[in-house]
Amino acid sequence: MFAPLLQNLRDRRPLVHAITNYVTANDCANLLLACGASPIMADEPDEVPEITAHAAGLVLNLGTLHRTTIPAMVACGKTANQKGIPVVLDPVGAGASQLRTATALRLLREVRFTVIRGNLSEVETLARGQGGAPGVDSTQRVTADNLDACCALVRDFAHRTGAVVALSGAVDLVSDGQRVFIIRNGHPMMRLVTGTGCQLSCLAGAFAAANPGQPLEAAAAAVCAMGLCGEMAHVRLGPLDGSGSYRTYLMDAICRLTPDQLEKGARYELR
Amino acid sequence: MFAPLLQNLRDRRPLVHAITNYVTANDCANLLLACGASPIMADEPDEVPEITAHAAGLVLNLGTLHRTTIPAMVACGKTANQKGIPVVLDPVGAGASQLRTATALRLLREVRFTVIRGNLSEVETLARGQGGAPGVDSTQRVTADNLDACCALVRDFAHRTGAVVALSGAVDLVSDGQRVFIIRNGHPMMRLVTGTGCQLSCLAGAFAAANPGQPLEAAAAAVCAMGLCGEMAHVRLGPLDGSGSYRTYLMDAICRLTPDQLEKGARYELR
Amino acid sequence: MFAPLLQNLRDRRPLVHAITNYVTANDCANLLLACGASPIMADEPDEVPEITAHAAGLVLNLGTLHRTTIPAMVACGKTANQKGIPVVLDPVGAGASQLRTATALRLLREVRFTVIRGNLSEVETLARGQGGAPGVDSTQRVTADNLDACCALVRDFAHRTGAVVALSGAVDLVSDGQRVFIIRNGHPMMRLVTGTGCQLSCLAGAFAAANPGQPLEAAAAAVCAMGLCGEMAHVRLGPLDGSGSYRTYLMDAICRLTPDQLEKGARYELR
Repeated sequence: MFAPLLQNLRDRRPLVHAITNYVTANDCANLLLACGASPIMADEPDEVPEITAHAAGLVLNLGTLHRTTIPAMVACGKTANQKGIPVVLDPVGAGASQLRTATALRLLREVRFTVIRGNLSEVETLARGQGGAPGVDSTQRVTADNLDACCALVRDFAHRTGAVVALSGAVDLVSDGQRVFIIRNGHPMMRLVTGTGCQLSCLAGAFAAANPGQPLEAAAAAVCAMGLCGEMAHVRLGPLDGSGSYRTYLMDAICRLTPDQLEKGARYELR
Repeated sequence: MFAPLLQNLRDRRPLVHAITNYVTANDCANLLLACGASPIMADEPDEVPEITAHAAGLVLNLGTLHRTTIPAMVACGKTANQKGIPVVLDPVGAGASQLRTATALRLLREVRFTVIRGNLSEVETLARGQGGAPGVDSTQRVTADNLDACCALVRDFAHRTGAVVALSGAVDLVSDGQRVFIIRNGHPMMRLVTGTGCQLSCLAGAFAAANPGQPLEAAAAAVCAMGLCGEMAHVRLGPLDGSGSYRTYLMDAICRLTPDQLEKGARYELR
Repeated sequence: MFAPLLQNLRDRRPLVHAITNYVTANDCANLLLACGASPIMADEPDEVPEITAHAAGLVLNLGTLHRTTIPAMVACGKTANQKGIPVVLDPVGAGASQLRTATALRLLREVRFTVIRGNLSEVETLARGQGGAPGVDSTQRVTADNLDACCALVRDFAHRTGAVVALSGAVDLVSDGQRVFIIRNGHPMMRLVTGTGCQLSCLAGAFAAANPGQPLEAAAAAVCAMGLCGEMAHVRLGPLDGSGSYRTYLMDAICRLTPDQLEKGARYELR
């Protein structure tokens, strides 16, 4: 079911405006180019609404959040909502500081998101309005043991926000408030490369921009594609390769992924 | 004719001060080290004139432009002009927002540039004072069809600004207002790596810093070198390699490029 | 003697808060993941004390220093001192501008550092309160000729600051004010990759966080590990590889380094 969505992404080459963080911005831009989209990074409040207005998609990422950037995020989100452009929220570190939690909650109030992608701590923080994450790398994980509870969490949070919620973990969950994709692609080594989550949020933005009206399938396709590429990158590892080469192979795999590979390699069930 | 210019760059190891963007700054710094120069990145208005005064070259890049950085760019440009240090302008996204267009035009008024390097949308925006670029990746390209018009554009813009203008596209044009180098090095895959334009602007700054008094030849050598390395990187691609490996091979090629390879590999005509 | 320190790092996976620069932040985060730690990057004054309070270690790096970030550095340093969390200072470019020199000296007054890591120009600037560095890449180097003078410099500066001082150069020196490790690991090619010093400072922060009460051994282990990985990366270089591949191999080596390899590969004498 995902092949045509990737084909649309390759064919339509959407321009995606990303307000992201200085740690992973380069990988996010290269990911957008690799998947077939075109990136534009800008976060100056004076110019960003214009930039968003040129774009087919918007991604807001709270990593290395600066207070001065918050109005830019709000303004771009509103512009995107007015233009009907899909908007992705990556609430990096929500729960790790009051500023990040409060900013994510403010964005949820002022912007209508198409996709919200985070880890369990971040999503729980936003869904339950309580913090407690130790950092941006969540120690709480979606596992077989808490799978039902996590499905209920994402379904409920998606239902309340009207956004597709993509919860990343050992198992990935993607829900629109009714159906839940339970996705088993991916490889643990992805956690040794910083910003694979940020990259996934950009990929979700690219899929959503290229496939208007199908946010659930677009987000699920992005999650399957990123995880599948993580598997393909792992297969390439040589005896001396570590996280440095893995990062490169992951980008290579995104660049070369075919609709047919995605169709055959996506491992999910739909509840 | 370009071999001695690269030899000078390797021998003189100029310190190049770059005010660039957080998306491509790491690649720009590594490019400067790979080509034989030494980078220093600083954009705090309070310190930058001092930093520029230590340097042999200056590069101003408008990607991820912040209003607070504009005075730093102006101050560094004036310092460089006073010291006789070559200055390169990369007007990333000029035309994509009023702020970027206005900032680029202000810099052109207040700073005397040695080299201006951009794509067709950016150069047209500055030359004709009109915007309209869809984003930082120009869709308008220099092609066989519009080659004469583009040659006239760069010659005229170079003549008016007193800068060497380097226009990047499927064909690259470099002019000092009289002569035009028409350069046919490069590979389309370079467009799948973010910041190859930013890197080229830094390479032009390094060549100009190492070859005072020869800005036209320095800029043309940088364009040929970058394009030639893009070709060499493409030759290395294996069956599983994509844009991730290509980015690494491109840096490797810059690092290993010899004056003799550049002399033999440069493909250009001079009008 | 260093094997157990690396084992502790792999086992304890400390969360390290780094306020670093936008040029090398991505490599710093990947280095922290590769060595077994977990990174969190944040520099917004409003949130950073909370972030530091979650962490087991703190790294303050002055590259691309912004005036607005200085209070964040001071606040985090004080929080870390109160919590007894090790703090590393990387005074990038101290001596290259009055702002950087003054900021580094202010941090030395207001924060008690566990480790100070820099090159000869930076350390001399702070030790003697005089500037004169040409840029962030020091041209002055620790060599056989000035080894005794450099040993005296680091011993004295460590004694006065109460910090372990790690001086990087052709030979690396690490002292706690009494003993001096003279370390001969490393490869000149490391200087062709931007931010290897920034990465080393983060590695020192990770070793210190995982080995409380052993700051001298932790810093020396980090210096030996980084240098040894630089040697291992060089061995892997193929005929077409340059600084791009070398950067990747260096990260791979950090990721795969075993306590036994570190024990056998560390080359140092203790004075």
